[in-house]
Amino acid sequence: MKEKSVVLLSGGVDSSTTLAIAKAEGFELNALSFDYGQRHAIELEAAGKVASHVGVKEHLVIKADLRAIGGSALTAETEVPKGSITGEKIPATYVPARNTIMLSFALGWAEVLKAPHIFIGANVVDYSGYPDCRPEYLKAFEEMANLATKVSVEGEIRFQIHAPLLEMTKAEIIKKGIDLGLDYSLTWSCYDPTPGGRPCGGCDSCLIRAKGFKEAGVKDPLG
Amino acid sequence: MKEKSVVLLSGGVDSSTTLAIAKAEGFELNALSFDYGQRHAIELEAAGKVASHVGVKEHLVIKADLRAIGGSALTAETEVPKGSITGEKIPATYVPARNTIMLSFALGWAEVLKAPHIFIGANVVDYSGYPDCRPEYLKAFEEMANLATKVSVEGEIRFQIHAPLLEMTKAEIIKKGIDLGLDYSLTWSCYDPTPGGRPCGGCDSCLIRAKGFKEAGVKDPLG
Repeated sequence: MKEKSVVLLSGGVDSSTTLAIAKAEGFELNALSFDYGQRHAIELEAAGKVASHVGVKEHLVIKADLRAIGGSALTAETEVPKGSITGEKIPATYVPARNTIMLSFALGWAEVLKAPHIFIGANVVDYSGYPDCRPEYLKAFEEMANLATKVSVEGEIRFQIHAPLLEMTKAEIIKKGIDLGLDYSLTWSCYDPTPGGRPCGGCDSCLIRAKGFKEAGVKDPLG
Repeated sequence: MKEKSVVLLSGGVDSSTTLAIAKAEGFELNALSFDYGQRHAIELEAAGKVASHVGVKEHLVIKADLRAIGGSALTAETEVPKGSITGEKIPATYVPARNTIMLSFALGWAEVLKAPHIFIGANVVDYSGYPDCRPEYLKAFEEMANLATKVSVEGEIRFQIHAPLLEMTKAEIIKKGIDLGLDYSLTWSCYDPTPGGRPCGGCDSCLIRAKGFKEAGVKDPLG
């Protein structure tokens, strides 16, 4: 029998590739997405398409309103910053405690499913500024998780947080996904789509995606 | 200037007393409640009344759908267990990863507010079965939290998780709250109210509350 996993899936390049990797590693896939007041539903639609394409046992979408907390260009009614890929500093699109909140929901669902494996597409290379993408953070979350739940405290399960993209460049991630047969035309990266539903081409996420495809020597099927 | 705090507030005896304690300790109070698909809105109303009564700077209610995860009598469409206060085992009303999810949202808000102090009414005495109420869990969460956010990683803030009720009996908690002038008629404990909006008197939470007031030698103003 396959070992069960919960995979955080936003529908972007990283989480979609993570899902494909978890499949290739032989895990049962349970994909978890959030409806957290994104400006655009396109991202959630992409997550649904990727989940079907890769083939998951279940795809759960949880409504959790991160907008209420405030403090980020991704969820607040402020302008998305354009034209700069920030290497050193923490970007303005940083969402407070986002990975912690998402991993906590994943942990709750993993306890219900009795799934020892939680996958997240965290990456330190292109987004070095996010504190909650670093290995020491992920390790601390794993330790906390194993003290937090009935199934782990009773010894039935030992939770493991998997972040297979952690040390990969965007180009390496894209090459890996293509090797695994992932169709990137189903994924979505843009923070600020045009009224016609096309990527803006100018936000950090579009720029990082474009750079990744270019360096991978592959044409982005989203154009 | 007062140091800022975020206080998790459900409107029950424990979290309401925790709010009163945080006030007595001189913190600026920012109360955080969740609309997570409770069967009854009475609990959230109680939280609002307690927040006004104690006097908070802000009371934020976040919609976060824990029902979607399943696995608990408190949020699923199963029957609430009656007539047994479970001392040793983990109760059926345990919600998977609930404290972890709530503390994660509190952490996100605390980062936005730059509030170093997070209060939770966790208690190991009456509910010894909940793994996410134990000191070792809370310590692990605190360590993870300080690796998770921009303000802590940049050294601006060191987050502290406060659980002032941790080692107190329910009777001690109630006596403390009364000393601090807390009006327990505004609080709500019952998991399964009557159609007329009265406490059922038979669920674990009603039984623990009744035992607490009895041992404190005080009449419960909710009757």
